[in-house]
Amino acid sequence: MAMIRTCVVTKEFEVMHDVDLAFVNSPDVSWYWVDFHEPTDEESDLLASFFRFHPLAIEDCLEYVQRPKLDFYDRYLFVVLHAIAGTTLEAEEVDLFVGQNFIVSFHKSSIHAVDDVWERLKREQDVQQGPFHVMYRLIDKLVDDYFPPLYNIEDVLNDLEENTNNEPIHDIIEKVFDIRGDLSKLRRTIVPMRDLLYRIIHSDRLQRMKERQLYFHDIYDHLLKLSEMIETNREITSDIRDSYLSLNSNRMNNIMMTFTAITTIFMPLTFIAGIYGMNFDYMPELRWKYGYFAVLAIMAVIGIMMFAWFKRNGWFQLLKGDSSKEERRR
Amino acid sequence: MAMIRTCVVTKEFEVMHDVDLAFVNSPDVSWYWVDFHEPTDEESDLLASFFRFHPLAIEDCLEYVQRPKLDFYDRYLFVVLHAIAGTTLEAEEVDLFVGQNFIVSFHKSSIHAVDDVWERLKREQDVQQGPFHVMYRLIDKLVDDYFPPLYNIEDVLNDLEENTNNEPIHDIIEKVFDIRGDLSKLRRTIVPMRDLLYRIIHSDRLQRMKERQLYFHDIYDHLLKLSEMIETNREITSDIRDSYLSLNSNRMNNIMMTFTAITTIFMPLTFIAGIYGMNFDYMPELRWKYGYFAVLAIMAVIGIMMFAWFKRNGWFQLLKGDSSKEERRR
Amino acid sequence: MAMIRTCVVTKEFEVMHDVDLAFVNSPDVSWYWVDFHEPTDEESDLLASFFRFHPLAIEDCLEYVQRPKLDFYDRYLFVVLHAIAGTTLEAEEVDLFVGQNFIVSFHKSSIHAVDDVWERLKREQDVQQGPFHVMYRLIDKLVDDYFPPLYNIEDVLNDLEENTNNEPIHDIIEKVFDIRGDLSKLRRTIVPMRDLLYRIIHSDRLQRMKERQLYFHDIYDHLLKLSEMIETNREITSDIRDSYLSLNSNRMNNIMMTFTAITTIFMPLTFIAGIYGMNFDYMPELRWKYGYFAVLAIMAVIGIMMFAWFKRNGWFQLLKGDSSKEERRR
Amino acid sequence: MAMIRTCVVTKEFEVMHDVDLAFVNSPDVSWYWVDFHEPTDEESDLLASFFRFHPLAIEDCLEYVQRPKLDFYDRYLFVVLHAIAGTTLEAEEVDLFVGQNFIVSFHKSSIHAVDDVWERLKREQDVQQGPFHVMYRLIDKLVDDYFPPLYNIEDVLNDLEENTNNEPIHDIIEKVFDIRGDLSKLRRTIVPMRDLLYRIIHSDRLQRMKERQLYFHDIYDHLLKLSEMIETNREITSDIRDSYLSLNSNRMNNIMMTFTAITTIFMPLTFIAGIYGMNFDYMPELRWKYGYFAVLAIMAVIGIMMFAWFKRNGWFQLLKGDSSKEERRR
Amino acid sequence: MAMIRTCVVTKEFEVMHDVDLAFVNSPDVSWYWVDFHEPTDEESDLLASFFRFHPLAIEDCLEYVQRPKLDFYDRYLFVVLHAIAGTTLEAEEVDLFVGQNFIVSFHKSSIHAVDDVWERLKREQDVQQGPFHVMYRLIDKLVDDYFPPLYNIEDVLNDLEENTNNEPIHDIIEKVFDIRGDLSKLRRTIVPMRDLLYRIIHSDRLQRMKERQLYFHDIYDHLLKLSEMIETNREITSDIRDSYLSLNSNRMNNIMMTFTAITTIFMPLTFIAGIYGMNFDYMPELRWKYGYFAVLAIMAVIGIMMFAWFKRNGWFQLLKGDSSKEERRR
Ligand SMILES: [Mg+2]
Ligand SMILES: [Mg+2]
Ligand SMILES: [Mg+2]
Ligand SMILES: [Mg+2]
Ligand SMILES: [Mg+2]
Ligand SMILES: [Mg+2]
Ligand SMILES: [Mg+2]
Ligand SMILES: [Mg+2]
Ligand SMILES: [Mg+2]
Ligand SMILES: [Mg+2]
Ligand SMILES: [Mg+2]
Ligand SMILES: [Mg+2]
Ligand SMILES: [Mg+2]
Ligand SMILES: [Mg+2]
Ligand SMILES: [Mg+2]
Ligand SMILES: [Mg+2]
Ligand SMILES: [Mg+2]
Ligand SMILES: [Mg+2]
Ligand SMILES: [Mg+2]
Ligand SMILES: [Mg+2]
Ligand SMILES: [Mg+2]
Ligand SMILES: [Mg+2]
Ligand SMILES: [Mg+2]
Ligand SMILES: [Mg+2]
Ligand SMILES: [Mg+2]
Ligand SMILES: [Mg+2]
Ligand SMILES: [Mg+2]
Ligand SMILES: [Mg+2]
Ligand SMILES: [Mg+2]
Ligand SMILES: [Mg+2]
Ligand SMILES: [Mg+2]
Repeated sequence: MAMIRTCVVTKEFEVMHDVDLAFVNSPDVSWYWVDFHEPTDEESDLLASFFRFHPLAIEDCLEYVQRPKLDFYDRYLFVVLHAIAGTTLEAEEVDLFVGQNFIVSFHKSSIHAVDDVWERLKREQDVQQGPFHVMYRLIDKLVDDYFPPLYNIEDVLNDLEENTNNEPIHDIIEKVFDIRGDLSKLRRTIVPMRDLLYRIIHSDRLQRMKERQLYFHDIYDHLLKLSEMIETNREITSDIRDSYLSLNSNRMNNIMMTFTAITTIFMPLTFIAGIYGMNFDYMPELRWKYGYFAVLAIMAVIGIMMFAWFKRNGWFQLLKGDSSKEERRR
Repeated sequence: MAMIRTCVVTKEFEVMHDVDLAFVNSPDVSWYWVDFHEPTDEESDLLASFFRFHPLAIEDCLEYVQRPKLDFYDRYLFVVLHAIAGTTLEAEEVDLFVGQNFIVSFHKSSIHAVDDVWERLKREQDVQQGPFHVMYRLIDKLVDDYFPPLYNIEDVLNDLEENTNNEPIHDIIEKVFDIRGDLSKLRRTIVPMRDLLYRIIHSDRLQRMKERQLYFHDIYDHLLKLSEMIETNREITSDIRDSYLSLNSNRMNNIMMTFTAITTIFMPLTFIAGIYGMNFDYMPELRWKYGYFAVLAIMAVIGIMMFAWFKRNGWFQLLKGDSSKEERRR
Repeated sequence: MAMIRTCVVTKEFEVMHDVDLAFVNSPDVSWYWVDFHEPTDEESDLLASFFRFHPLAIEDCLEYVQRPKLDFYDRYLFVVLHAIAGTTLEAEEVDLFVGQNFIVSFHKSSIHAVDDVWERLKREQDVQQGPFHVMYRLIDKLVDDYFPPLYNIEDVLNDLEENTNNEPIHDIIEKVFDIRGDLSKLRRTIVPMRDLLYRIIHSDRLQRMKERQLYFHDIYDHLLKLSEMIETNREITSDIRDSYLSLNSNRMNNIMMTFTAITTIFMPLTFIAGIYGMNFDYMPELRWKYGYFAVLAIMAVIGIMMFAWFKRNGWFQLLKGDSSKEERRR
Repeated sequence: MAMIRTCVVTKEFEVMHDVDLAFVNSPDVSWYWVDFHEPTDEESDLLASFFRFHPLAIEDCLEYVQRPKLDFYDRYLFVVLHAIAGTTLEAEEVDLFVGQNFIVSFHKSSIHAVDDVWERLKREQDVQQGPFHVMYRLIDKLVDDYFPPLYNIEDVLNDLEENTNNEPIHDIIEKVFDIRGDLSKLRRTIVPMRDLLYRIIHSDRLQRMKERQLYFHDIYDHLLKLSEMIETNREITSDIRDSYLSLNSNRMNNIMMTFTAITTIFMPLTFIAGIYGMNFDYMPELRWKYGYFAVLAIMAVIGIMMFAWFKRNGWFQLLKGDSSKEERRR
Repeated sequence: MAMIRTCVVTKEFEVMHDVDLAFVNSPDVSWYWVDFHEPTDEESDLLASFFRFHPLAIEDCLEYVQRPKLDFYDRYLFVVLHAIAGTTLEAEEVDLFVGQNFIVSFHKSSIHAVDDVWERLKREQDVQQGPFHVMYRLIDKLVDDYFPPLYNIEDVLNDLEENTNNEPIHDIIEKVFDIRGDLSKLRRTIVPMRDLLYRIIHSDRLQRMKERQLYFHDIYDHLLKLSEMIETNREITSDIRDSYLSLNSNRMNNIMMTFTAITTIFMPLTFIAGIYGMNFDYMPELRWKYGYFAVLAIMAVIGIMMFAWFKRNGWFQLLKGDSSKEERRR
């Protein structure tokens, strides 16, 4: 739903919504906020024709997708911010032009944080704060919206670590790799946003915002925590993956070893049976009364001895119940 | 057990405990310490209503879990510290507001170090030191409490390295991965605390604490040592894991090779027995007097030659006693 | 097609193309651009004999391949830039000498970006801008040309991740390693170019370009984004490779385990058949009326029990349809 | 052998050994060195009661084991150094208090470097140098003693790389992991010592030592070289381990493949023998005159063809002598 | 061939070779170069007795092997440089003492670059340049000599990547590990040399060399490129190794799977043959006229069905010609 929303605060602290764009420059206006919401090409042209912003800044708005950044122009700051789309975790760009008496926001998709701040401003009628306060509220809300997907990932990882659902290893590995991909996506948004806030806090040219430094520092704290959560969770994915792979390979090896040991035990027995299955005319043992039982006894002795020897050397791990314990645990 | 504890030092160096909160601002009071211990929501409200601390700082107190940090407000420092819960190794937040004549501590769970410092202060009646000394004692004690869990991990790793309990590889790998997780948890607490102490030591705005720099440097030394211990122990876990996995895979391979060699030896022997088990009318060898014994002899020769050849090429590693040596060592 | 192209702007803002080289130093000339396009050795000698550039700079032009860099000489800047050859992704050097009233470009192969800027200048007749504007346009175009190969890699990686073409693992691994090599090549060009732009933006000696800083910053943004895309894509290649290798090894193991389990089931059955194939004179079972059927029944019981036990323990993974699901997905 | 050694230089440049401790503060004394050698608790108390050193510094002496560091107190430097115990490669702490006219050394175990410098000072009677020269000589000697264990490791690694002793892979891997552990231990001593020397060289507060900077720089060079040797040798251990593991796994695979190929060849042959071992009444082939020989011939043809096919495809790697070559090389 | 070479330039710009050492300090001499070429111990003593260089610098000359570095003494610079021995790629030390009117070079082995510069100086009679120019020429030549071994490694890696010689995997892995070792050796020389040149360019105390900065910058460019080549080639070795190992393991697995599938097919067939080889008195099938042919038919059906099922599931990868394609490619 393409549109341009306007919000104007007059010098008498009256708040007016959805006024005509031409009215914003009237001398009665103390400050205004214009929001480009999924704009059409004609609406986007207003950035140049009406607001006369710098061509490089406009290019950054129209060209998808810029990194988060802060540029200083003569009359205004130009800020590029990133929201995170709830389902895909892709970054979505929000551009702000912030001057002394205006803020212009521009975004090609619907952004939850922008709508939220717009609606609160309407309700609260908090008119004295001005453009820089709106910018603070927008960034604060955008960053608050980064937490839910990350908490969600932490929950999934916790389940995987305990393997509460007893999933097959194949699905666990798939999930771990999916989560790694999601963490990389989030990091690509969060780390440049963190660096942008660092720049905002430490910029000499933002002296006029110094009284707000405490507030931007609060956002920076959140971004620091978010980026640490990402690194921590990436580490956890590696550890889960390595742990599963090595335990699984260990379990596989134990099974294979047991199978192979069984085969190895029957090999000489089958060979002995083969010998007495030969059709030679003169094979004295075949004529003995208890030859058959003697051979059965010898086979039993050989089989039991091999079994005992293998068992003593630990080559029947999975008969000890280890494997079932593994299956219970993971 | 939710409560607010008060400790007041009067201008006459008298120490009073559990006075009414309203008394702390009396002109007779030289300095005071108020401790919020697992506070109820009503008690927490006092941070704003009674002490009039900054909303951002209060938000940090109430919102779990902030990173360790130091914020400068006009009348006070705001410090976020982390204790380590003994059993889970999770970080627990302790917040301090430190002004010229007061210290307010806030923690949602029972913290051993806070109780310890509170009790000592009661006993020692060391009244002249003031709020900054209490802050130093609290941090010093919190950091001292980081050592026991780390020493504990070092002991477990030592046992694993020697494998004194002769545990199966599966359990060793599980333990190693558990320890890696614990080390990551500890690092998430210790590294930001180390950086916080660095900031305390090097902060220009803490000139009033410069006379205490030596003491904070002593804590910083401990945190440096702790963070080095963590990195060292993480490295040891990787080495133990890699070492076990490669030795185990080597041992597995040797066993499988031996089994397979046994199978390979019996294969041609069984085939020969199969040949003379065939029922053709005209098989001259079957009629020979000593055909049976000749075939037995040929089988013995083939079997012994294959065995000797395999052995000479080192394909019976585990018959050399290597594997038992391994089992003894690890 | 070796050649030297000239473009001259007179003091009357007249633009002349392909004038004689000697004319460029005429007092009527406001500024000029000379482009050495795949020059012959004789043409290259003009750098020293006609333009009298510094021997070290000329050596850098003639010697293949210099890193991107910026050197300050008295009368001019010397800039080494890299284009990326579309098919091989190899770096191709473009050297610029930029003075107050001249720009000399030198490149041993045909560079698309140089031709593009040259043609536009001809069309646009944008004569007032001068040498530094040409330099900006050249760098901007060179960097824009880095994007298509990187977008191409992103598309291939996307296909590999989904494995839409259902390719065998062998081909996937080959492609992933090829892409890693291509990303390394691109990084070797892009990272030094990024550092060069950083130097251009922050150089004190480029004060005369300060009014252009915004424009160079725009290029720097692109290079930052490019270098982040490279790191991201390298990470994705590792994850794809690790994921395929571990899933494939898991699938292989499942197949091998199933095969081995089948072998293990038939081993005792074949042994029993062998026993009753022996030719002893006195084997009472052979004389029983239903001995044959009893043995068949026993065999069936043993086989079914082993099969059931193996199945219950999860040793027939691939009979559960997992493997076919894998083949569909990847 | 607990003791306190004293060495006093009088204002007349007379050197006196083993004087009473009380004498060191006599006005005749130009400077003195007191060495606490495995001190008893009573002797350790002298640090506080006699020398009146700062409690934090004394705590560092008594508490094992501090990191190498340099602390500035009003009357003296406090330096923590590490010696390396020859056999265990564990760090051993040496603490120095260095003032204008005294040096006090403290160490809980016998340190070769301290004894060495003490004995040389006795012999050389080099009395004019003073406490800072003793400190330089002690550090220089301590660092020189780091080289022998590292050269020893380099020798062992060299042998392992060539495998001159033709050791089994299991022992090589064990040794490589042991060496990695030793290198980590050495690094934990050498890197903080290197950083300490860096601090000594660059400290503003050590201007009085500036004339000695060249000498401390010489020690710093050695520590730089030592830390580079450690990184290099760690890299070599990884490469040796990776190389052995991959070559060994390759060799194992070749052996297993050969065994499996042999089994695969005999499988159909044994099956054919089984067919003609069946006891059907009507099996015409059994009645043919040369049926037996025909079957033998068919078996030979099948066996030889399979063998030839396998060999042509390279599935008998180990029959080509590769494996014996490997055993010779490694 | 131990010797000391002398080259003297008089105030009249006359060049004299092989003059007596005592002559170099004559007032007629403008500047001189003395080269210690594989010096005997007596000749080395001249560094102290004749030239009176600082003991620490002399110690660095005599003690093998110092890291590249630059030390400032009152009358001279002391520079330690590294040449690379062509065959072993080991570092060889070249020490320079560079004063206002002299340069003394010292090297324990024959260094190609020193001889080359010495001979050119003889030929060119380029007498006005002085000691710092000789130092520049020596460093430039030493660094130029680093390129051939690195180009050589790049060629070998290229061959390995294409596997033009179709070498067995075992040899490829050995070569890759050898090249990694060579790259590490080169890096140990090139990186400290790069840092040395950085220090030369940025040193405040080398203002007298500022007019030469352009020239030293040119050498620094080469060292930057060399160190990037090393990192790039190290990365390539990892990628080649990983790629070969994973492709080889994939190929091995395919072969083993095929072998195992063949064994699995014959297992039930051999079992059936075994059944009808039993000697029970009452086995009705044996009496049937076409029992034998019926069993043969059943066996054929079972075998073909299993083969078809295995093939459909992709368990006969190597019969599809993949393995031969692999062998052709690599
Ligand atoms: Mg945009
Ligand atoms: Mg927030
Ligand atoms: Mg908030
Ligand atoms: Mg996926
Ligand atoms: Mg996803
Ligand atoms: Mg906060
Ligand atoms: Mg909190
Ligand atoms: Mg402490
Ligand atoms: Mg303490
Ligand atoms: Mg666990
Ligand atoms: Mg735990
Ligand atoms: Mg201490
Ligand atoms: Mg060039
Ligand atoms: Mg561009
Ligand atoms: Mg553009
Ligand atoms: Mg390829
Ligand atoms: Mg390619
Ligand atoms: Mg842009
Ligand atoms: Mg790795
Ligand atoms: Mg100590
Ligand atoms: Mg030394
Ligand atoms: Mg020395
Ligand atoms: Mg060991
Ligand atoms: Mg050891
Ligand atoms: Mg030295
Ligand atoms: Mg030397
Ligand atoms: Mg050069
Ligand atoms: Mg050159
Ligand atoms: Mg080698
Ligand atoms: Mg070599
Ligand atoms: Mg150059």
